Amino acid sequence: MSAGKAVILLSGGLDSATILAIAGDRGFDCCALTFRYGQRHVVEIESARRVAAAFGVIEHRIIDIDPAAFSGSALTDRGIDVPKDSPHIGSQIPVTYVPARNTIFLAYALARAEAIGAFDIFIGVNATDYSGYPDCRAEFIRSFQEMANLATAAVVEGRGRYTIHAPIIDMSKAQIIQIGTALGLDYALTHSCYDPDADGSPCGHCDSCTLRLRGFAEAGLADPLKYLE
Amino acid sequence: MSAGKAVILLSGGLDSATILAIAGDRGFDCCALTFRYGQRHVVEIESARRVAAAFGVIEHRIIDIDPAAFSGSALTDRGIDVPKDSPHIGSQIPVTYVPARNTIFLAYALARAEAIGAFDIFIGVNATDYSGYPDCRAEFIRSFQEMANLATAAVVEGRGRYTIHAPIIDMSKAQIIQIGTALGLDYALTHSCYDPDADGSPCGHCDSCTLRLRGFAEAGLADPLKYLE
Repeated sequence: MSAGKAVILLSGGLDSATILAIAGDRGFDCCALTFRYGQRHVVEIESARRVAAAFGVIEHRIIDIDPAAFSGSALTDRGIDVPKDSPHIGSQIPVTYVPARNTIFLAYALARAEAIGAFDIFIGVNATDYSGYPDCRAEFIRSFQEMANLATAAVVEGRGRYTIHAPIIDMSKAQIIQIGTALGLDYALTHSCYDPDADGSPCGHCDSCTLRLRGFAEAGLADPLKYLE
Repeated sequence: MSAGKAVILLSGGLDSATILAIAGDRGFDCCALTFRYGQRHVVEIESARRVAAAFGVIEHRIIDIDPAAFSGSALTDRGIDVPKDSPHIGSQIPVTYVPARNTIFLAYALARAEAIGAFDIFIGVNATDYSGYPDCRAEFIRSFQEMANLATAAVVEGRGRYTIHAPIIDMSKAQIIQIGTALGLDYALTHSCYDPDADGSPCGHCDSCTLRLRGFAEAGLADPLKYLE
């Protein structure tokens, strides 16, 4: 039996692909939402399409976000270098932080959820090795959920209450990979690198590649992606 | 002396033009943010430009929001009629409600504030005659402010705390118009109609026109706009 519709924030990365697998496993009819916002790693949108297709989502919306909304991050600003082989992972907020990004993504998810009558939103934030992003913490997610339940006609009119699901928030990368693998997710479809080459090949040295490779090693599994060099 | 930078959500309507005047009067260096999101009343963007110029903002950003993000509202969907001469103003949530619109607008304002080092955000919501929109209530604004103070690096790193200002939330339309007039705002620059004609002339009968005209009448002032018919 269906658990109802859910909106899944799907970047095409390892974490968001795993939460799509988890939401599907919990019986939700999944509506995937992906954003194009001038990120360096636009190749991840193709990964999102492949993952969404593999899991048979009932819709996949790709929303354009005006890149003018985001500035001052290495993920969106070509003038700032993506750090490589950083010794600081998890100990400080890196230059790849994008101001209020998850707030904006969740706001769009809330709008879509209300429009289609869904009350469940899944986001693949991860606090354990979250690279120091404040909007990946449990207290942020809880606070957004409270706000969402004051923001919408659907709640005021008594049709339901929103739940923001962050099912992998306390997992290690290795646990995430093990769960996704158990649910049949092929991680060859996903993409994690912040700074891929023109063909989309991952660099193997940015924070995101470093955390991914460490996760596969700890899980005792091979990363199916082909890295540069 | 400057009170620092503030981000002002400026639609070009009567309410948001008034809060820009209020923020300027409080000594803020104002950064205006306007959205183009497929609304019927796109003419209001020209009003926003005129108002921003009249008040000497330090920047005015116009951000495109993918209309695919909003659906099922009479403001964005040509298949739904804008109600005219409605007897229900304030008693129910009207079809002109746009799902999670203020949540999305405030999320963008937060991103811009963090990028430019501002900690004050002004929004022209109004609860007294708010046409029944849940995201115009004080409890929503307070909850968004709490969430904002968990969402961003600027707070985690101790650079400041965000305040969401909603200075006209408890005012009547007449009071808003009286304050704006006292601050030198020329309401001929503003636009309120949900359903203007091709030349931008206001209909005089939608909820927004009705509330505006009632406000000017109660304030004992003449609305400088020319209405159809």
